[in-house]
This record gives sequence, C-alpha cells and structure tokens, in this order.
Amino acid sequence: MRVNDQHYHTIWVNENDATIVDVIDQRRLPFSFETVHLKNESDAFEAIRNMTVRGAPLIGVTGAFGIYLALLHFDEKNSLQEYLNEKASFLKTARPTAVNLAILIDEMVDALSDYADKETVVKLALEKATELKNREISWSEQIGEYGCELIEAISKKKNGAPVNILTHCNAGWLACIDWGTATAPIYKAFLKGIPVHVWVDETRPRNQGARLTAWELEQEGVPHTVIPDNTGGHLMQHGMVDICIVGSDRTTATGDVANKIGTYLKALAAKDNQIPFYVALPSSTFDFNLNDGVQEIPIEQRGASEVNEMEGISPEGEVHTVRIMPEGSPVANYGFDVTPARLVTGLITERGICEANRESISSLFQK
Amino acid sequence: MRVNDQHYHTIWVNENDATIVDVIDQRRLPFSFETVHLKNESDAFEAIRNMTVRGAPLIGVTGAFGIYLALLHFDEKNSLQEYLNEKASFLKTARPTAVNLAILIDEMVDALSDYADKETVVKLALEKATELKNREISWSEQIGEYGCELIEAISKKKNGAPVNILTHCNAGWLACIDWGTATAPIYKAFLKGIPVHVWVDETRPRNQGARLTAWELEQEGVPHTVIPDNTGGHLMQHGMVDICIVGSDRTTATGDVANKIGTYLKALAAKDNQIPFYVALPSSTFDFNLNDGVQEIPIEQRGASEVNEMEGISPEGEVHTVRIMPEGSPVANYGFDVTPARLVTGLITERGICEANRESISSLFQK
Repeated sequence: MRVNDQHYHTIWVNENDATIVDVIDQRRLPFSFETVHLKNESDAFEAIRNMTVRGAPLIGVTGAFGIYLALLHFDEKNSLQEYLNEKASFLKTARPTAVNLAILIDEMVDALSDYADKETVVKLALEKATELKNREISWSEQIGEYGCELIEAISKKKNGAPVNILTHCNAGWLACIDWGTATAPIYKAFLKGIPVHVWVDETRPRNQGARLTAWELEQEGVPHTVIPDNTGGHLMQHGMVDICIVGSDRTTATGDVANKIGTYLKALAAKDNQIPFYVALPSSTFDFNLNDGVQEIPIEQRGASEVNEMEGISPEGEVHTVRIMPEGSPVANYGFDVTPARLVTGLITERGICEANRESISSLFQK
Repeated sequence: MRVNDQHYHTIWVNENDATIVDVIDQRRLPFSFETVHLKNESDAFEAIRNMTVRGAPLIGVTGAFGIYLALLHFDEKNSLQEYLNEKASFLKTARPTAVNLAILIDEMVDALSDYADKETVVKLALEKATELKNREISWSEQIGEYGCELIEAISKKKNGAPVNILTHCNAGWLACIDWGTATAPIYKAFLKGIPVHVWVDETRPRNQGARLTAWELEQEGVPHTVIPDNTGGHLMQHGMVDICIVGSDRTTATGDVANKIGTYLKALAAKDNQIPFYVALPSSTFDFNLNDGVQEIPIEQRGASEVNEMEGISPEGEVHTVRIMPEGSPVANYGFDVTPARLVTGLITERGICEANRESISSLFQK
C-alpha cells in the first residue's frame, strides 16, 4: 500500500544487492519511516524477535527469507540438510505464538532438500521465498475480496451510511506484505467507493493499532478514529459498530483464534450485542494440529518495559521514552489471548468464508 | 491511607486557615505528591472539572465543600436561597456522570435553606460538609468490612494461597476520602493478614489504575501487578483471577452500573469464566430515578489529548507529555460505560451486600 504516495511492500530484496533483504522498521512508525537491511539469518531472527517486523504473515515470510540469507553463507563443509535443519530450528524460535513462522520455514526446507550445490540452492531459495511472499499478497487480496462482500452487504442494509468496522491491533498490510488480513476487506471496500469508518483499538501495550493501523489508514485516506481498548464495548452497546474484523496469529482446526491480547474481550462484547465478529487469516495461520486453543496455544510473555514505559514524540519532534507508572509496581505482559470459536461468526480466508468449527474449516481446507 | 508513611485524606480544611480547603492534586501522581488550595466555588468546580480530584465519592464531597466555600463569599445582597441554588446549579455541571455530586450538593442545600444570617450558614455549611466527608469515610470502612468477608471466604477455599483480585480504574481511597470503595475490602483483608494480590488494570486513557491504584497499593505495601486493560480476559480464562471488584460512578435502581470505560468488558469476561464480579459503592452513588443504565446514564466525552498524548517521567526525573499516535488520526474518548445488572454478581454497600436487581437493592435501601 502507500507510504507518502509511493507503493511499498513490508519486505523486499534490495534493488542494488540481491544478497540483502530490506524491511520497514515498524518500531519507528508512525514517528519516522525507516528501512533496515537483513544480511544473514541472525539479522532475520533479530528482526522478528525485536519486532522490527511483526504480524503473523510477515513473520513467516521473513523466516523464509531468513533461510535464503542463511544459504548465502553456507560454506559447504557440512551437509546442506544438516545446515538447513539447524538454521530452520534457530529461526523458528524467534517468536513462539505465530505458527506461520514454522510453516513457511518448513516449506522452504522441503523445497530445498533435494539439492546439493550451493549455487542452485541459493537460487531456488530466493525463488521459493519470493513465491511465498507473492502467495501472501495474493491471499491477502483474496481475503480482501471475500471480506468486502460482507461490508458491501452491510452498506446496502444501511442505505449507504458509513459501515463502522472495529479492528484490534494491526492486521494491516504492515503485518503482511500488502493489503493486510483484517484491513484487506476495508481497503477493497474503500477503493470500491463503499463508505467505511474504522474504529481502531489503540492496542496496549505496544499500541500497534494507534501506531500502525491508524498510520496505514491515514496514508490511504481511509476514515478512522483511534479509541482506547476499553471503548469498544460501549460503542457496541450503542449501535456504533456494524462489524468487527481482526487478524489471527494462530487458529486451531476447531476455530479457536489466538490474536493480540484483548481480542477475546471484543469478541465477548460483539456476541453480547449481536454484532458479527470475523477473523481474517490466510491458510498459513491455521494450526491443524491443535484442537483446544485456550489450553494448547503457547502465549508469549514479553518484557515489562512495553507496559511501564511509553514511546512518543515531543512537540519539538523528538522521540522520547517515559515511564508511565510508579517505579515500584510490577507489571505483567501477555502478548496474546485466545478467542474461543463459539464467539467467532466466521473466518475470512483466501479460499472463502467459513464458520469457526472443524466441519466448516475442513470443508475449505481438505488435508 | 498512607503517603510516605503519613496518614492522609484526599480533602481537608486547611489547618491554618479554615477558609481554605486543601486537596491532593491527583493529576501529578504518581510522579509527584502535591496539594492544591481551594478558596471559592470556582476553584472547587475547576478541581472537579480538570480532575485535580476525581472519583464519585470525592467529587461529591468536593462539591459539598464547594457550597461551603461559596457561602464564605456570600455578600447578602440577594436572597440566600437564590444564591445557594445558583451555586448548586453551577457546581453540579462540573462533571456529568457521577450522581454523587448532585446528591451531596442537594444535601448541603437542604441542610442550609432554613437559615438567613451569613455567619450561621457558613458555620453550618462547614459542619455539614464535614459530616458528609466523615459519612463517606465510615461508608468506605463498612464497604471494606462487608467486602472483606468475600475475600476471606475465597482465601479459606484456597487454603491460604493469595486471593487474586482484579480491579479497574481507581476506586481507591484517592477516589474517596479514605479506604476507597473497591479497594476498601482489599485493604481490610490485607490488614487482617489475608494473603491478597491485586491485578491492576492500567485503565486507559487516563491510566488511573497504573498511576493511582498502583501508587496507593505500593504505599500500603499490598502485593499487586499492573496489567494492560486488554489482559484481564486472558487471566480469567486461565484461573488467575478469583474475584473482580470495581467501583461505580452511578448505579441505577435496577443495578446497572456506570463505571470507568472498559468495566463492561471485564464483567463480560468474568461472566464467561464464572468469576464473581462485585461492585463496591456507597449509597450516594445510587440514582434511584433511573431504571435502564445503558439508555439513561449520560456518558461524558472528554478531550482528545487524553488519548493521543501520554504523560510520563523521563530517566532524568522530568515529567514529559508525548504524542503517541499519528498527528492526523482523530480519536474518541468516552469516559464511562454501563455494565448491565445481569453481569454483576453483587453490590457491596455500606449497608451490606445485595444482588444487582431492584428487589434486592430496595430491600437494603427503603426509600
């Protein structure tokens, strides 16, 4: 999508040097737009771990390019298979919740395992990573088309009054490669001229809603309003939300949805007010091995500074970090929660929309 | 309760000059502890409006002292009754949601209406405001005793393992005069030696949980952990919350509870996980004229800067305000939401604990 009216992806091979992969440094947004060079698998690992890149689909593609970068430095002393397995295991541990990372890395390893000479493998790795990247883009677009139909149907019922869509965190193009997951239907609807307005959950503690989703929507000119995470229930009680669309970091075979902490609370409020609650996700976000999301999906705990400190920009344009609570107060920082399938109206995937239950999911995804 | 090991109330008549009322400047906490002089009704109005003082019981008592301060400046040109009515109407408009403000101001006016000479009225106004203040303290203590029984019962079931209590916003002694409402049972339990641990919702956008409740608990030595508002649902899903206790800004005759925005979301999560959800409130917080909280309680909308800016302290100890989202993104700031009575396990009042329905409430409060 657009950054200062120029089209960008979140990750790309450097135009001048194909041994470098570039990414947008999402930790600096919205205060400054910077890019970072990844030169080896450790750079890719670190970019995932420290959240230079984030969002399940983008984490997966960064992992895939991490394998490509690792192979550039393969010295042919050991077996390729051993080297690949070692680098794959390493990259998979960068973050625990998003299953896309493991899935895309496994796809890379599977595609490369039959080859031995370095030159061929490097070339194939770049092709495969690029293919996985392009696949995410086309999945996002398809999610956008399917989800847009939902928005269009509401718009017709409202006789063209703006459709109010609530989203949590950033499941935007910044979390993917382009278009996004939760935002893809919004962008598609907006570009078709359907009047939309987006309630953007701030999404504490890292404020990905206020920092990233708001910035994305602003860059595209989509009407939106940032709200504290506490606000959505009140809006839903008063008919000010027509549909919720969120992303997912991992979804079970039974339709339980791990997503940014706080998603579960919004799903409860949507249910309580009969508002449709949709989850937009590519098939790479499904973990078909899991049946009980609340019990089985590992929930990452992150550092205290994300909670007790806040980064912002001063009136003079300087980025500062300030402590926002008493020094002696401990904090807890759980990154995700799990929304049980019973609260989810439907899953918007690149293959169409299904219900959040095993039967409906497996009818779309025959394994 | 204690501030740096000294006992404080939130509001008191200045020790050296009885024409001045002092309050703690709660906008400066936890970064600095400062007090403010109120010298007339405009100072009282402004202190309520700009949230130097906040919390339904404290707002009410500040309004009562506002009437006292107004009478100090009564010039006896007009009728006392007219003057009182005019000042009462003015003070009541300082904030719209808490009903205590109107109720305590009306109590002041009722108590003073039969008198004409200034000296008598001023003396009576000070007595009445002090009586209302002391009544709030004793109500808080009684709420504490009743609520403590709930915590003690859970503690016994847990064989003395810490009772995990989740609270939202600040319904602590800072919101009252002493003890608090939601925190009163916690302080009573802690002082009785019952092991407790408090999950403190940060409470965006003004962060009264992280700034005030955490500070209060820290000053008293009560074990606690600050969490983003998004976190409570996850904790409840995993058995990490034994009971929720929150305050209220206004509660209807039918038990619908207006409280800080986001309360409704926590009540939904408590219901979904069979966790008791209690509201602690003095009788002055009931609005017996209202039957449908969601439809009838006015919800204050506040300024954008509370959402898009954040105040904190730098490593050098300087208090800074920084902008935390894109400059071009609009924000919305609703101060409260309404939790329907069906989600409330019980109301802890100074007269005992009742269910959140008309019958049970009126059996405690015969009107």
